[in-house]
Amino acid sequence: MTHTSLEYARRNRERHLSELFDFLRLPSVSTDPAYREATANAAMWLAERMEAAGLEHVRVIPTERHPLVYADWLHAGPAAPTVLIYGHYDVQPADPLELWTTPPFEPTVRDDFLYARGAADDKGQLYIHVKAAEAYLRGDGRLPLNVKFLIEGEEEIGSHNLHAFIPQNRDLLAADSALISDSAMLGRDRPALVYALRGNCHVLLDITGPDHDLHSGTYGGSIDNPLNVLGHLLARLKDASGHIMIPGFYDRVRPLSLEERELLAQTPLSEAEWLQQAGAPQLWGEGEYTLVERIGARPTLDVTGMFGGYTGAGTKTVLPSAAHAKISMRLVPDQDPAEIAALFEAFVRETLPATVRAEVRVAGLSQPVLMARDTVEMRAAAAAYEATFGRAPVFMREGGSIPVVSDLGHVLGLPTVLMGFGLPGDRIHSPNERFYLPNFYAGIETSIRYLALLAEGPATPA
Amino acid sequence: MTHTSLEYARRNRERHLSELFDFLRLPSVSTDPAYREATANAAMWLAERMEAAGLEHVRVIPTERHPLVYADWLHAGPAAPTVLIYGHYDVQPADPLELWTTPPFEPTVRDDFLYARGAADDKGQLYIHVKAAEAYLRGDGRLPLNVKFLIEGEEEIGSHNLHAFIPQNRDLLAADSALISDSAMLGRDRPALVYALRGNCHVLLDITGPDHDLHSGTYGGSIDNPLNVLGHLLARLKDASGHIMIPGFYDRVRPLSLEERELLAQTPLSEAEWLQQAGAPQLWGEGEYTLVERIGARPTLDVTGMFGGYTGAGTKTVLPSAAHAKISMRLVPDQDPAEIAALFEAFVRETLPATVRAEVRVAGLSQPVLMARDTVEMRAAAAAYEATFGRAPVFMREGGSIPVVSDLGHVLGLPTVLMGFGLPGDRIHSPNERFYLPNFYAGIETSIRYLALLAEGPATPA
Repeated sequence: MTHTSLEYARRNRERHLSELFDFLRLPSVSTDPAYREATANAAMWLAERMEAAGLEHVRVIPTERHPLVYADWLHAGPAAPTVLIYGHYDVQPADPLELWTTPPFEPTVRDDFLYARGAADDKGQLYIHVKAAEAYLRGDGRLPLNVKFLIEGEEEIGSHNLHAFIPQNRDLLAADSALISDSAMLGRDRPALVYALRGNCHVLLDITGPDHDLHSGTYGGSIDNPLNVLGHLLARLKDASGHIMIPGFYDRVRPLSLEERELLAQTPLSEAEWLQQAGAPQLWGEGEYTLVERIGARPTLDVTGMFGGYTGAGTKTVLPSAAHAKISMRLVPDQDPAEIAALFEAFVRETLPATVRAEVRVAGLSQPVLMARDTVEMRAAAAAYEATFGRAPVFMREGGSIPVVSDLGHVLGLPTVLMGFGLPGDRIHSPNERFYLPNFYAGIETSIRYLALLAEGPATPA
Repeated sequence: MTHTSLEYARRNRERHLSELFDFLRLPSVSTDPAYREATANAAMWLAERMEAAGLEHVRVIPTERHPLVYADWLHAGPAAPTVLIYGHYDVQPADPLELWTTPPFEPTVRDDFLYARGAADDKGQLYIHVKAAEAYLRGDGRLPLNVKFLIEGEEEIGSHNLHAFIPQNRDLLAADSALISDSAMLGRDRPALVYALRGNCHVLLDITGPDHDLHSGTYGGSIDNPLNVLGHLLARLKDASGHIMIPGFYDRVRPLSLEERELLAQTPLSEAEWLQQAGAPQLWGEGEYTLVERIGARPTLDVTGMFGGYTGAGTKTVLPSAAHAKISMRLVPDQDPAEIAALFEAFVRETLPATVRAEVRVAGLSQPVLMARDTVEMRAAAAAYEATFGRAPVFMREGGSIPVVSDLGHVLGLPTVLMGFGLPGDRIHSPNERFYLPNFYAGIETSIRYLALLAEGPATPA
């Protein structure tokens, strides 16, 4: 009975929040080898909480890098549907540390917001569903449908090992649909169902000229400078208005239909609000597309990190040996990340002069996805949102990537619901990441309602 | 008598080297505030050694940043000429530290080379003249001419305080000529007299877009990326073949005369050797100029350091708030560094899009210089070199900068001799900086001979 589980959830809010604090204190930064142990600790901690929630078959599954956490409860009977709930316990690096008001791994509440790295992305959101399951199992004694949890520790680095795990574990993961909370609503009372995600192709580029740093006076003008060379390359990768100039880059981009452009035009997202959230001098991008289209329906190329030469205080008159750039290309259907990586490398090799050598490494690939909007699960999710927030959700495309979604669809054949509880100002991936606490509690209630609605099946034949 | 002082110098080689080791152990990195005390210690150490050498009026003179060291010996009589010897006790930063075979501030001898930061630039070279003075004063009891030493601690950061000190201390610094050893020969037995130095205009550029790091998926395509913007700017500052595109940049560049091009063409510098020293895939630069001309007679623009976004291990999907670049423009007569800084800033402001804000700060300015080759001092220097190395020096232009040289000429009216004892493979400003030890001893002998020749005056009227 939903009612009992809702009451259980309300009674236990304080404890649930205190547990989330503990989860957020574990610095599970997946990209940095220095946090390998901390990341494993987060997996163990989560497994223990799942066990305590009444879930069964809880296991921490080692991979080549960070472990997966699996748990289930399968006693709803063979006629009941099975939902696979995904989330990730790994987080982005916290630096630049000096820009945090309070330390990233010491969760702090200020004005209804919980500040910590991972608060919204994704520990706070995945924990919503663990607590919803607990509310059923400890409140009602049972769940209304079969539930499987699959939580990974490599989402922020491309889900490489999960990508390998899924096709090898089809039986373990068999389900009727998937549920993920790793996205944002449009505002406090404006729930949103994400039906498209951009993919990502993240590459590391190292350009080497001289084999050691040279004196910039002695050699300047006679030896090419890898930092200047990198500048020229960046200017040729993407023009100033955002058009990417790698040959073939746009070949597989599916054009937006008139119908979808009309749907997206209804997204209640104001340019002024977006600009205010970003804190930039002005908006930017491809003039022939609207803001909402640029974010969700167009591919991009962004340098996410760059360094070379002397980066300390003051100056050093060197002509540096090497330049380094990390470049992320966000992709849209039907672009293929591996193909884009190959096009990128070919263009770089063709474009760079013979005065330097280059190495290109692929750091992460994830497929873009586009999902059907008219499904049983989407309707149940819309109804659960509306019951909790008093307002029907809008459909939107999300600019970010969740690598697993493509595998859930293509390998396991699952329709997926992306039911986010974040807010646009959450600063995920940035200093002072936060999660709006009322949404933690509302999220648990929405999850409880969604699981009940999903168990009932379609009210009317689809 | 030169003979006695030469013998004194030879007898004391071991002690002189051991003192140089002590000097090199002091990490006097002038650009980094963390080394402020170490830099002051180096000044004190040097003053004590000057006192011990028999020099007089030794004093450490505080400035707004790093102190100057002054000493003299003025008992050669009013008819004898006075030489002002300049050097600098500050050094470049040692990073990247991991590329040093032995630690930068633990001097080590391997195969006749002394490895340490500052070994060649300029502690090893300036100490040559302190030891030459000592050889006269302790060996002969007197110097053949009047000598003043002026040693600074800010050469590597643009000599800002020395530039202010010189015009305010004309009497203290009054002399007939100046002597500096802070350059290189062309090879072990190929002495070189530098008659031109490039100037430098070193600027710091900060480009800011959004006021905090953004999620590259959520915002990518709708907010401009300062790292990509920096790439576009760099591509517009200098073209791929080395031509600088800042309007007005070349307006004051004095064209090379046919006579000077012929002189420079005789420089025994092979392209193969230069390339081997640099360890680069190939040479580079303005096609219409020879290698020697590119190094000494043409201005350049090099990025000496650049950073922004995530620079740790792995990747972080951020659209970064800011991009930073340190840019050094080496200048030739009659370019003016302050004017070039203004042209640079105007071009940057004009070129950058309205999606970002920029700050330009001047980190160091030094004037280019071009000196007469046919002077009493140059002839004495050539004779001293030839007596020691068995070979007459070649005249060459040096690509690096020594900020004080312009002030010595323009403010004090002194002809200056740049008598270098470094070698092309010394890796100054780079990891594994070294000094060829036989040149330390040969340098002391050359200095002893030069001072004697200078005291004798012109053999024949000039």
